[in-house]
Amino acid sequence: MRVGVLTGGGDCPGLNAVIRGIVRKGVQEYGYDFTGFRDGWRGPLDGDVTRLDIPAVRGILPRGGTILGSSRTNPFQRDGGVARIKENLAKQEVDALIVIGGEDTLGVAARLSDEYGVPCVGVPKTIDNDLSATDYTFGFDTAVGIATEAIDRLHTTAESHMRVLVVEVMGRHTGWIALHSGLAGGANVILIPEQRFDVDQVCAWVTSRFGASYAPIVVVAEGAVPKDGAMVLKDGSLDSFGHVRLSGVGEWLAKEIEQRTGKEARTTVLGHVQRGGTPSAFDRWLATRFGLHAIDCVRDGDFGTMVALRGTGIVRVPITEATARLKTVDPALYEEVGVFFG
Amino acid sequence: MRVGVLTGGGDCPGLNAVIRGIVRKGVQEYGYDFTGFRDGWRGPLDGDVTRLDIPAVRGILPRGGTILGSSRTNPFQRDGGVARIKENLAKQEVDALIVIGGEDTLGVAARLSDEYGVPCVGVPKTIDNDLSATDYTFGFDTAVGIATEAIDRLHTTAESHMRVLVVEVMGRHTGWIALHSGLAGGANVILIPEQRFDVDQVCAWVTSRFGASYAPIVVVAEGAVPKDGAMVLKDGSLDSFGHVRLSGVGEWLAKEIEQRTGKEARTTVLGHVQRGGTPSAFDRWLATRFGLHAIDCVRDGDFGTMVALRGTGIVRVPITEATARLKTVDPALYEEVGVFFG
Amino acid sequence: MRVGVLTGGGDCPGLNAVIRGIVRKGVQEYGYDFTGFRDGWRGPLDGDVTRLDIPAVRGILPRGGTILGSSRTNPFQRDGGVARIKENLAKQEVDALIVIGGEDTLGVAARLSDEYGVPCVGVPKTIDNDLSATDYTFGFDTAVGIATEAIDRLHTTAESHMRVLVVEVMGRHTGWIALHSGLAGGANVILIPEQRFDVDQVCAWVTSRFGASYAPIVVVAEGAVPKDGAMVLKDGSLDSFGHVRLSGVGEWLAKEIEQRTGKEARTTVLGHVQRGGTPSAFDRWLATRFGLHAIDCVRDGDFGTMVALRGTGIVRVPITEATARLKTVDPALYEEVGVFFG
Amino acid sequence: MRVGVLTGGGDCPGLNAVIRGIVRKGVQEYGYDFTGFRDGWRGPLDGDVTRLDIPAVRGILPRGGTILGSSRTNPFQRDGGVARIKENLAKQEVDALIVIGGEDTLGVAARLSDEYGVPCVGVPKTIDNDLSATDYTFGFDTAVGIATEAIDRLHTTAESHMRVLVVEVMGRHTGWIALHSGLAGGANVILIPEQRFDVDQVCAWVTSRFGASYAPIVVVAEGAVPKDGAMVLKDGSLDSFGHVRLSGVGEWLAKEIEQRTGKEARTTVLGHVQRGGTPSAFDRWLATRFGLHAIDCVRDGDFGTMVALRGTGIVRVPITEATARLKTVDPALYEEVGVFFG
Repeated sequence: MRVGVLTGGGDCPGLNAVIRGIVRKGVQEYGYDFTGFRDGWRGPLDGDVTRLDIPAVRGILPRGGTILGSSRTNPFQRDGGVARIKENLAKQEVDALIVIGGEDTLGVAARLSDEYGVPCVGVPKTIDNDLSATDYTFGFDTAVGIATEAIDRLHTTAESHMRVLVVEVMGRHTGWIALHSGLAGGANVILIPEQRFDVDQVCAWVTSRFGASYAPIVVVAEGAVPKDGAMVLKDGSLDSFGHVRLSGVGEWLAKEIEQRTGKEARTTVLGHVQRGGTPSAFDRWLATRFGLHAIDCVRDGDFGTMVALRGTGIVRVPITEATARLKTVDPALYEEVGVFFG
Repeated sequence: MRVGVLTGGGDCPGLNAVIRGIVRKGVQEYGYDFTGFRDGWRGPLDGDVTRLDIPAVRGILPRGGTILGSSRTNPFQRDGGVARIKENLAKQEVDALIVIGGEDTLGVAARLSDEYGVPCVGVPKTIDNDLSATDYTFGFDTAVGIATEAIDRLHTTAESHMRVLVVEVMGRHTGWIALHSGLAGGANVILIPEQRFDVDQVCAWVTSRFGASYAPIVVVAEGAVPKDGAMVLKDGSLDSFGHVRLSGVGEWLAKEIEQRTGKEARTTVLGHVQRGGTPSAFDRWLATRFGLHAIDCVRDGDFGTMVALRGTGIVRVPITEATARLKTVDPALYEEVGVFFG
Repeated sequence: MRVGVLTGGGDCPGLNAVIRGIVRKGVQEYGYDFTGFRDGWRGPLDGDVTRLDIPAVRGILPRGGTILGSSRTNPFQRDGGVARIKENLAKQEVDALIVIGGEDTLGVAARLSDEYGVPCVGVPKTIDNDLSATDYTFGFDTAVGIATEAIDRLHTTAESHMRVLVVEVMGRHTGWIALHSGLAGGANVILIPEQRFDVDQVCAWVTSRFGASYAPIVVVAEGAVPKDGAMVLKDGSLDSFGHVRLSGVGEWLAKEIEQRTGKEARTTVLGHVQRGGTPSAFDRWLATRFGLHAIDCVRDGDFGTMVALRGTGIVRVPITEATARLKTVDPALYEEVGVFFG
Repeated sequence: MRVGVLTGGGDCPGLNAVIRGIVRKGVQEYGYDFTGFRDGWRGPLDGDVTRLDIPAVRGILPRGGTILGSSRTNPFQRDGGVARIKENLAKQEVDALIVIGGEDTLGVAARLSDEYGVPCVGVPKTIDNDLSATDYTFGFDTAVGIATEAIDRLHTTAESHMRVLVVEVMGRHTGWIALHSGLAGGANVILIPEQRFDVDQVCAWVTSRFGASYAPIVVVAEGAVPKDGAMVLKDGSLDSFGHVRLSGVGEWLAKEIEQRTGKEARTTVLGHVQRGGTPSAFDRWLATRFGLHAIDCVRDGDFGTMVALRGTGIVRVPITEATARLKTVDPALYEEVGVFFG
């Protein structure tokens, strides 16, 4: 049995831990051989492979990134993409494929498996934690930890000065990182993409905070959008609807707060810092176990499935189920946390 | 409504986050008043109280330890203990008690609630993660993170030198910290209290590791016990059965490995470092949500219950259920992880 | 003998360590009493004081910020400022004043001491490390450490993707933080205020880096200025000279790089994160020793002087000497480090 | 010009940064070629070499350990050692040798250079910071930072419990790590090898600390020795003089304190954790600059010299001067810090 492995989509701490788990168990317990495909779906499309064995996975557990490289290549957008993949898998004598990726990468795996008979097993990956069917995805805990540490540090300034501190964190479509880091960091306002925010409400919280104790910390997901008014787009042009814009909400909000409250505001934009560096212990544990269970799926011939976390156990779900819809922040949870706002 | 709060047992990062969650929601949402009892059950026994309101919980979220103090006092071991507690609760006009603690502290809460009609709500606390009925306890993730970082650092030496590195981590009765940090840190041997270890097997793993790549890292829980032979006790005397001993297994094992394999061995004993300092983001999230749900239990008059984590949700369980038995490492899980040994 | 202490200017990790050193030695060795003045020079101006004794300094060593508060108040810009200070010092029976601050705060101390006979001892404080007469100031090592860790994390993404990563760090007038963190983090381009940068040269380095290995990391001090062309100001207006602008150079540069090289660029703006949180061990050591030596200056009646680091020893210099000129990055040092560019 | 490089002695974070600095500048500025010798002096003895060029040093800056390997091999203790080294250098066409190491490794370089005409440049390396002629050695700041973080965490327990916490840190012959981490961590007792300690004095400090506030933290260098009485040796036997013993002083002292004061004591032994993992920003800066200056020494034909830190500048000193005597903690400095004891 020869198993191919690929990683697709954006960086996510823990990818290497998954790969190591797959290879260690596959070689030692089941005697499998492995082929690494480079740069996500580009690997099987172009037949670009790399050696993947025990020495290749030595020492990679604590390292961020992925030894296999990644890309956002989608074979369904290439002429004859599926045929080329099947051809290259055959040429490499690969009997099964483990696909580690997010919504897009896994969506391809689901179609290849269900429609074209390519035996795929999925491992969910998204730093945003927005995949259904799994309690958590690896990388998320690391990102939350980094954002929380940044917020912790801002408290020092908040205690000593009269400045509003705005922190923009990752989260295009969902507010998981903002919610968790904002709560863990003791932020006074948390703004998420799932709920349009009211700048006047934000300013009211900010002002009340100054009265009660010291300066406020505002955590805003990069995809958060105001209810009213327009935002200046990244390229300097105005968005007349106020909801098409990919970044810069932190800086925009800081300026609005300054103008409306008369208080100075400062912005921190963490950016890619949140997805780099060594994975947290939690993410290494989760990623490793995903790897161990993914190779078990291969052994069981259980294709078209994805491994997922439920409580403390790893379960198997259809890939299609996992990618069917975005896991957004439940309004009840956002409200629960709202007791700390202001 | 006036609610008493106490924290009992050993240190655990996240205690202050629970207290803050309770008070913030209790005051702001329900208009409750609070009384803090000092030093666990000693507080209500002696009527030793402290002010507990919004200003008192400001800034405590990232701080380890507990602003209420702690102790291992057991009122059932004091003459008239229960009567004194009921008397002091009445004197302080406390209508309900939130008890944050481990097996012993919660055991008292269960009896007071079930047998003596004291309205108690429990919040589970153990750094060892060995309480049934909850997926995780707060403090555990922090401890695992600290131990993992230490193991990470040891890899540098392991790569450069030919020394066996033994790390003794917490875990008197269960191996959760050893298992999680050992896996996350990429240890080559993990020894837990649930399974007697065979020193010859450990030496075989150690020796094979030297052959394969570089020097081995052995993670051993403080409560791990060898199958055979006697261990030198902490006071220097010999334990003729080899299973009564409270600490020092790391140093003992390093010496055994040196004698049996001829390889130099070095020991790291992390000790209380694992339970101090700021809680991880995960633990702050969990502890805060425990606090928010505990005060909801009080509002609902749901006494004799304990909050617990199941998946990503907080549920309520009878305190007695939670303290009935120790949650030990499942042999199947230990075996799953064993693929990384040697 | 009663000694007053104040802290002025911006946040800087280590302020509390200085205060603790002063008080511990002053009380225990010399039997002095202390008065804390609140919020920099505002304290002695308004007679706003706080208790400062052994219990007051307990536990503050690892904490960022300052227990005395800070401000940028300048008594020479207030009517009768000097008279009010002398009056309040007399009223509080303060015999000497220890002033912990940067250029502005110490400038006041120098004039008060030299022109008005107020017995002042100075302790240098600037996170930017730009004070003459001392090898290092406390807070700088902490800031460099935080920025370096962020750059470390960005390497993960740089290895996996083809994006230019721009990090804006502190440094309005000098490039010390950019230079040290950029070198320690292995940045491929470091831009400092002392030397106008050439965007085309930056783009050449960026492009050559893509050829040689993986994506480049550009560290830019917030006060760095391009040689040519205009920058968009923070308020959206254009600066026709290209050298008046207080922030936003990171975002501006990222956009320029995208346009000129065709490569995607992402920006991280660390902001106040760099000046918050616990001081590094180095900064605690330095700050504590500054405190111990400052109180010795008081004992020796050595006023108008400032403590300073030279090698591993603490020396005394005239305050005026220290504040006479900004310590900028030596061009030879910048050139030495330039071997790592591109 | 072909330059050989070797690293000898124990692990020290920053070794790779030195190597990278040497190679980057040597190749880019001077057009030199390099040969890496493996495992310290064993490399030139056995002719064991490895490729050392720009790709070989890519990405190694943040990594602990040394890509060249290390050993404690001493060519003067091998028959014909010097002749074999000269022969292998000639065979590899190596014109100069950069030797990165501590007292022993540099001692060999000094003799080879001075007595046998082998053109050597030295770079000082010791985590213990005990080399004369340089203000600091790289690795020391990292070790101090790790020990300080551990002490920080212990404060949590010290605040909540009535236990004495003993931390054993590195330092066989000198107390630099104990002194710096103990001061930075706010320890209540610091014991160093340079000054015999009096257990009764330690117990007096411990007892007075319990009275004043909360539980004491005792930092003890592994090489610290009591004034009176015997210590149990690591192998269980008794040392009748009380001053020959290589490790275990932490555990021994904890037991003594328990017996003499009646207070419970707990021990943390950090061990090799202190010398592993990524170097601090300070150490990367220092190590890189050492590398840049070492290759300048080669260019200048300045052999028999060692680079050293003086203030913020790098200077050159004779290797023999640097290795002539151990840099011990100045009694005046120890006394200065003593104001924080008890």
